[in-house]
Amino acid sequence: MSRPDVTLCLAEYVAGAQAADLPESVRKEVARALLNWVGVAIGAARHETIEIALRAIRPFAGPPQATVLGRGDRLDIMNAAMLNGISSHVFDFDDTDLATTVHPSAPVAPALLALAEHRPMTGADFVLAMALGIDAECRIARAVMPPHQAIGWHPTGTCGVFGAAVATGKALGLDAHRMAHAISLAATQPVGIREMFGSMTKSFHPGRAAQSGMLSAFLAEQGYTSSDQGIEAKRGWANVVSTKQNYAAITDGLGERFEIMRNSYKPYACGLVVHPVIDGCIRLRAAHGLTASMIDRIDVDVHPIVMELTAKRTPSTGLEGKFSVYYAAAIGIIAGVAGEPEFSDDAVRVPEAMALRDKVVPRIDETLHQDQARLRITLTDGRVLEQFVEHAVGSLHNPMTDAQLEGKFRDLVAGIIPADRIGRLIDLCWTIGSLSDAGEIARCAAA
Amino acid sequence: MSRPDVTLCLAEYVAGAQAADLPESVRKEVARALLNWVGVAIGAARHETIEIALRAIRPFAGPPQATVLGRGDRLDIMNAAMLNGISSHVFDFDDTDLATTVHPSAPVAPALLALAEHRPMTGADFVLAMALGIDAECRIARAVMPPHQAIGWHPTGTCGVFGAAVATGKALGLDAHRMAHAISLAATQPVGIREMFGSMTKSFHPGRAAQSGMLSAFLAEQGYTSSDQGIEAKRGWANVVSTKQNYAAITDGLGERFEIMRNSYKPYACGLVVHPVIDGCIRLRAAHGLTASMIDRIDVDVHPIVMELTAKRTPSTGLEGKFSVYYAAAIGIIAGVAGEPEFSDDAVRVPEAMALRDKVVPRIDETLHQDQARLRITLTDGRVLEQFVEHAVGSLHNPMTDAQLEGKFRDLVAGIIPADRIGRLIDLCWTIGSLSDAGEIARCAAA
Repeated sequence: MSRPDVTLCLAEYVAGAQAADLPESVRKEVARALLNWVGVAIGAARHETIEIALRAIRPFAGPPQATVLGRGDRLDIMNAAMLNGISSHVFDFDDTDLATTVHPSAPVAPALLALAEHRPMTGADFVLAMALGIDAECRIARAVMPPHQAIGWHPTGTCGVFGAAVATGKALGLDAHRMAHAISLAATQPVGIREMFGSMTKSFHPGRAAQSGMLSAFLAEQGYTSSDQGIEAKRGWANVVSTKQNYAAITDGLGERFEIMRNSYKPYACGLVVHPVIDGCIRLRAAHGLTASMIDRIDVDVHPIVMELTAKRTPSTGLEGKFSVYYAAAIGIIAGVAGEPEFSDDAVRVPEAMALRDKVVPRIDETLHQDQARLRITLTDGRVLEQFVEHAVGSLHNPMTDAQLEGKFRDLVAGIIPADRIGRLIDLCWTIGSLSDAGEIARCAAA
Repeated sequence: MSRPDVTLCLAEYVAGAQAADLPESVRKEVARALLNWVGVAIGAARHETIEIALRAIRPFAGPPQATVLGRGDRLDIMNAAMLNGISSHVFDFDDTDLATTVHPSAPVAPALLALAEHRPMTGADFVLAMALGIDAECRIARAVMPPHQAIGWHPTGTCGVFGAAVATGKALGLDAHRMAHAISLAATQPVGIREMFGSMTKSFHPGRAAQSGMLSAFLAEQGYTSSDQGIEAKRGWANVVSTKQNYAAITDGLGERFEIMRNSYKPYACGLVVHPVIDGCIRLRAAHGLTASMIDRIDVDVHPIVMELTAKRTPSTGLEGKFSVYYAAAIGIIAGVAGEPEFSDDAVRVPEAMALRDKVVPRIDETLHQDQARLRITLTDGRVLEQFVEHAVGSLHNPMTDAQLEGKFRDLVAGIIPADRIGRLIDLCWTIGSLSDAGEIARCAAA
């Protein structure tokens, strides 16, 4: 039977977990998540979103304790965690827990890496803390999803704060009692509502979650008191933010099943739910040498979530383009790739893309899974091309390979950190588990 | 008809409001709120809650820009706002918007006063920004209450973040567009769930709300984008955190009706809903010279909210005592006053108080208003004394006088700031509207 004292159960497990207990497969997946995360965070380092956030924060920041990835700036660890959390999500290119839509690394890794520059932390301890943080946030998300998201919450922020608190708390060595208080302090700070999608505020969510979770752990470390039942109490987090509370998802199989093993990585720099559509367009383009001028109409059958999250018909910015199934299909045909450059403000305003986008006709098909799509492209010459995407690249059944992750990383960081350091940074990520100082990754990721 | 674009409507009003438009009565009430707030914040300056929070935060704090009230410490304005927001609420002795249970000053004044030490701000501008911040947070709370609180939210944190964003944004001179974005950035950071009541985390809520609202305004000032409809959108704040959305409460009568005119101040250092009970006990004590040993039983009829919020039967700490109708009644009889000393950890453990507390029998009476209570005390000699409290002291119909507020202030700050500065600080609060530099209050409130 599941334990009813959910918060304490989780806290006791986290406090007692040992690096040696982690299966090799989990350690490997942490390295993959870390590589992917460092790449997307560096990649966005010079984005306007980060420039603006830095301008706002710098006058109030503390000692230069930690690196803003991909930049020369150093901030206190709280603000560095927030900035790096924001940059993690600017491109919407970070990892995803498909069952919950949580982007697991964005709130956790920035807090942990900033801390690693401030207090000595071995790579093995980093890996353990990151695995536990991701485990906690994804389990907690599972307990309340999908109603939690349907209500209007952005689970990467609302659940991510738990991930940051648990990871930081573990790295600080909190005992079970203080860990429970850190978790409850996190519970009282859910950040992120869905109305913010399409603006810079979406990226703010994992950033503030990273910082709030970290603050929770530091407060608890000093003895700041909170509840022992922040998650499961009558007026606790799960009851306040959802109509569903499946606590067994949090407490069952702790230390046996690690949620990071279900982590996925995006090959395309946009909303994950449109990836099957892009996949299908790229495949048809390659098979038939398609160009925009050949096309009369693009019918796409999609999972219902696609029209809920990405129904932006006339995107006018790159950010809006990331949430437009219309533009996504068009750019798949036109470019044959869908990296960050294909989602720039300029790219979405190219007349060819705007014209093709208007020929896209999505239709909801309740029988499709989220990683599936069915395309039918009608050509101006009357031919009709069909493509069924059974599992999009990057989905659980068709994961990105290590080599693909490295390629994505190189594309993202090129021109931002010195070329001769890219290989070393990749190596540091793959070998994180054996580093004597995890903070080395942050220093190597400075511009 | 009310405007449907709630966020923009509020933002436009705030951006356009002028100090000269404020009625004299509003300016006076801001001064009363300020005096009350400065007192409670200084009073808690040496409380364990603040010591712990400072220990956790200090290593990461920025330049010494702003005063932690009642102390020698200076922190960057973001962290000073958070600390002073926490201390505002440690004693649960701050002001209250009775219709919503929002404590209006705690999230607003700390942000504004910290800012006043960093950027030049006249007293008139301070008064305007504080009035607007309190107006915004109380209006927004009205729109979603009471279901918002019933779900489990702590409106002082969840609505307070709007107050801090609006006040800070006004002081920064944001235009309507950026003000709307500041409001929406606030909307995505609701802090505070009710499970935290009874621990230090309750006080954290207005502290983090002050800081989050302030951060929202600074981000928006630099051009960080957000939604124009953060409050009213389908997946906006009001729909996410409540089952009720009365938007007219936000948009109607802006500039004509000021919610601060309904502000109330506590004579007793505990949960407001038990004040009528304490009032009744103090009156019967005075009228009949009651002592604990004379009493066999205390029956109290109370509004239902009393049993929802203050049903702690056996409080073991001072903090728990503040949320115990049983202890509140007992201490009213035993002490005849109910200031902070009566809610210390030691006070609640005095055997006489524990024995009398066990003789209190509360009963819900749905016909009573929140500021009413009916008491019947049965004495050991068989006599029965009755008292009906129609309006508790500090309620809207029986407000604390200016002199009573000054008395409360003096009690709170005695021994924390130098005695020869107390009168000056009181004067500064009363004359805030004519100060050339509002930051003077913060410097005078340092230990």
